[in-house]
Amino acid sequence: MLKNLSPALLEQRLAEYETLLEVGVELASTLELERVLELALRKAEEVCRAETGSIWELDEERQELFFRIVRGQAAPEIRGLRVPLGEGIVGSVAHRGLPEVVNDVAADPRWRGDTGAEFRTRAILTVPLIAHGRVVGVLQLLNPVGKEGFSADDERRMTLFAGPLAHAIENARLYAAQKRQFVETVTALAEAIEKRDPYTGGHVHRVVCYSLLLGRQLGLDREALARLRLSAALHDVGKIAIPDRILNKPAPLDEAEFSIMKQHTLDGAQIVSTIKALHDVLPGVRSHHERLDGRGYPDGLTDPEIPQIARIIAVADTFDAMTTSRPYRAGMSPSTAAAELARGAGSQHCPRVVRAFRELFETGGFDLDAGRRLLASLSEESNQG
Amino acid sequence: MLKNLSPALLEQRLAEYETLLEVGVELASTLELERVLELALRKAEEVCRAETGSIWELDEERQELFFRIVRGQAAPEIRGLRVPLGEGIVGSVAHRGLPEVVNDVAADPRWRGDTGAEFRTRAILTVPLIAHGRVVGVLQLLNPVGKEGFSADDERRMTLFAGPLAHAIENARLYAAQKRQFVETVTALAEAIEKRDPYTGGHVHRVVCYSLLLGRQLGLDREALARLRLSAALHDVGKIAIPDRILNKPAPLDEAEFSIMKQHTLDGAQIVSTIKALHDVLPGVRSHHERLDGRGYPDGLTDPEIPQIARIIAVADTFDAMTTSRPYRAGMSPSTAAAELARGAGSQHCPRVVRAFRELFETGGFDLDAGRRLLASLSEESNQG
Repeated sequence: MLKNLSPALLEQRLAEYETLLEVGVELASTLELERVLELALRKAEEVCRAETGSIWELDEERQELFFRIVRGQAAPEIRGLRVPLGEGIVGSVAHRGLPEVVNDVAADPRWRGDTGAEFRTRAILTVPLIAHGRVVGVLQLLNPVGKEGFSADDERRMTLFAGPLAHAIENARLYAAQKRQFVETVTALAEAIEKRDPYTGGHVHRVVCYSLLLGRQLGLDREALARLRLSAALHDVGKIAIPDRILNKPAPLDEAEFSIMKQHTLDGAQIVSTIKALHDVLPGVRSHHERLDGRGYPDGLTDPEIPQIARIIAVADTFDAMTTSRPYRAGMSPSTAAAELARGAGSQHCPRVVRAFRELFETGGFDLDAGRRLLASLSEESNQG
Repeated sequence: MLKNLSPALLEQRLAEYETLLEVGVELASTLELERVLELALRKAEEVCRAETGSIWELDEERQELFFRIVRGQAAPEIRGLRVPLGEGIVGSVAHRGLPEVVNDVAADPRWRGDTGAEFRTRAILTVPLIAHGRVVGVLQLLNPVGKEGFSADDERRMTLFAGPLAHAIENARLYAAQKRQFVETVTALAEAIEKRDPYTGGHVHRVVCYSLLLGRQLGLDREALARLRLSAALHDVGKIAIPDRILNKPAPLDEAEFSIMKQHTLDGAQIVSTIKALHDVLPGVRSHHERLDGRGYPDGLTDPEIPQIARIIAVADTFDAMTTSRPYRAGMSPSTAAAELARGAGSQHCPRVVRAFRELFETGGFDLDAGRRLLASLSEESNQG
C-alpha cells in the first residue's frame, strides 16, 4: 500500500508518524489520569485539526459512557452526560469497537441535536479506545477546521493515535485504583483498631471528615488534603498499645492513667515511622496533642514548631471529643464546643485553624455530611474526574 | 532533512516508524516490569538486528547500573553485574545521557573484555533510557547480525525506541513501588495490632515466613504466594476485638473465654471483608482454625470446604503456637511440634501441607531465616528482578 504513495505523500505521512511517535512518548510519560486526558485532547487537535473534542470513558458495570474531558466551546453543555452503550454515535462506536466518520450529523438518526445554543455540530469523527482487546472509552472530534468533513485520512490518523491513548488511560486508571485501594485499606484498618473503644465509635471517621473540611477552608490543595486525610485516619493508631482498663474506663482518667494515655502519640508515631509510605502523615500522628503555648504533648512544642497538619487535626479531634458523650459525662452542644475552641485560639489551638472552623461553623458548613461528601469526592476524583 | 531522502528510503523509514508505533503501544500495554523488559529486548532485536542485547537499570541511591535482562548467548556471564555510573561503556553512556556506537570494542580503553569464553563482543550500540529528563537505565545491543558494525541509522532507531521504553520502565517501577508499599503498610499495621499481646511478639511475622515456605514447597506461583503472605499477615487481625483480660491472660483460657477468643476469626473476616483490596485474603483470615474433621471454627467446615490458603496458615500458625512459650507453659521443641503436626494430619491438618512441612523440616528447610529470605525476595522481585 505504501508503494502507491507519491514522494510528497510519503513525506507527509512520515512527518505525521514522527508526531505520533512523540505523542506516544508524551502520553506514556505520566500515570496521572487528568494529565493524560488533557494532553491527549491537545495532541488530537494537533494531529487532526478540529473545533472541539471530547474523551468518554466506559463504565463497564453500568454499561454507560461517561464524559471525561472536553475542549473548546461545547464544554459546559455536555459535562455530566452519561450515554448507554449502543446509543447515540458515541455509544454506537463504543459498542461496535470501530471508528466512524459522520460528516452530516443532521442526517444521522442517532444524532440527538446540540445541547447548547451557541455551538453547532456539523461533522463528527469518533474512534474507540481499545486496550487489551476491550473498549475502554471513546475519543471524539467535532467539526474539522477549514474543511467540510473529516477524511478517511483523519480517521486513520486518529485510529493510530487511539492506541497509545487507550493504554495511557488504562495504565493511569490502574495506578489510580491502586492508590485508592491503599488509602481505603489503611483507613479501614485504622477504623478497625478504633473499635476497641466502644465509646468513641466513629471518632476516627468524624475526625477525618472535620479535618478535610478545615483543610479545604484553609485552601489546601488535593495532595495536601490526601495527606491530611490519611494522617487524620491514623491519628489515634497508637491507642492500640493502651490497655483496655484505661482506654475503656467509664470515668475520668487519674494522673497515672492519663500519662499512659498520652503515650498513644509516641506509639502512633513509632508505628507510622516504620512505614515508608506513611512518612508524610507522621507529623499529624505525633503532634495532634501539642498546644501553641507549649503545654501539649508529647514534645511540648510551641507555636512555630507545630506542623500545620497537626494543628488541623487538633481542632477536629477536640471538637469531636467535646461533642461526644462518654459514660461519665454528656457531650457538649456544638455551639458550646465552638465557643470552647474560640477560647483556646492562640493558647491551645492555632488561630488560623480556629478561624477556618468558625467560618464554616457559622454558615452551617461544619457539617458531617458535607465532610463525607468531600471525602467521597477525594476518593473518586481520580476515578471519575 | 526528510526532503533529501529517496522514495525508497522514505518507504523504508515509514515502515520503520510503523513498527516503532506498534512497539510503543505494546510497551505501554503492561505495567508489569518483567513483561516490559522481555518485550523490549525482543522488539529491539526486531527493529535493529543484533546477536544479543541487555537492559540495565540505574540504582540512583548507589549510583550504579545493575543488570536487568539479557537475551541470547551472553546471558549467564553478566547476570549480577553492577557497574558504577561513569565506568565502562554502559556507565559512561548513562553518565553522559547520550547514545554511543563502539564498533571496535577491543580498541576502546573502557572495554573490560568478555566475561565468558564462548561469546566474543565485536561491536556495541548503547543508548540511555531517559524518562522525565533523568537517565533511568541503558539499553545495549551487541554485534549487529550480518554486518561489521552498527550504523548511525541503527543509533537513530534505537534512540527513538528508547523513549517509549524508558517511560514503560518508569511506569512499571512506579506501579510496582506502589504495590510494594501497599503490602508493607498492611503488614506493618497488622504487626502493630499484634503488639497488644506481649507473649506472642513476632508471631505474625513468623507465621508469614512459615506460610511462605510451605506455599513454595507446595508449588504456589508468585501471585498465590503474594496472597498467602498478606493473608498470613492478617490472620489474627480480628484479635483487635478481644479484651486484654483474655488476650493477655497468663493462664489457659476457660470455656467462656475460649469461646470469645474464637470470635477473632469472624471479627477478622468482618474487618477484611469491608476492604475490597483484601478480598483475596479473606479465606485465610476466616478459616485458619478449621479442621479437616469438621471440629474447627468458626464454620465447622470439613475437608473439601477448607480453602488451601487456610490449610497452609493453619499448619504455620499451629507450629509457631506450639513452639512458643507462654507464661503458663514452655514451648515445645521443634521436633516435638513436628511430631504433633504429623499426628494431626488427616484429622486436624491437611496431609498435603503436613507432607510439605515434613519435607522441609527433615532437610532443615523449615527455618525462619530461610522464610525471611523468601519474604525479602518476594518484596524485591518487582524491584530488582
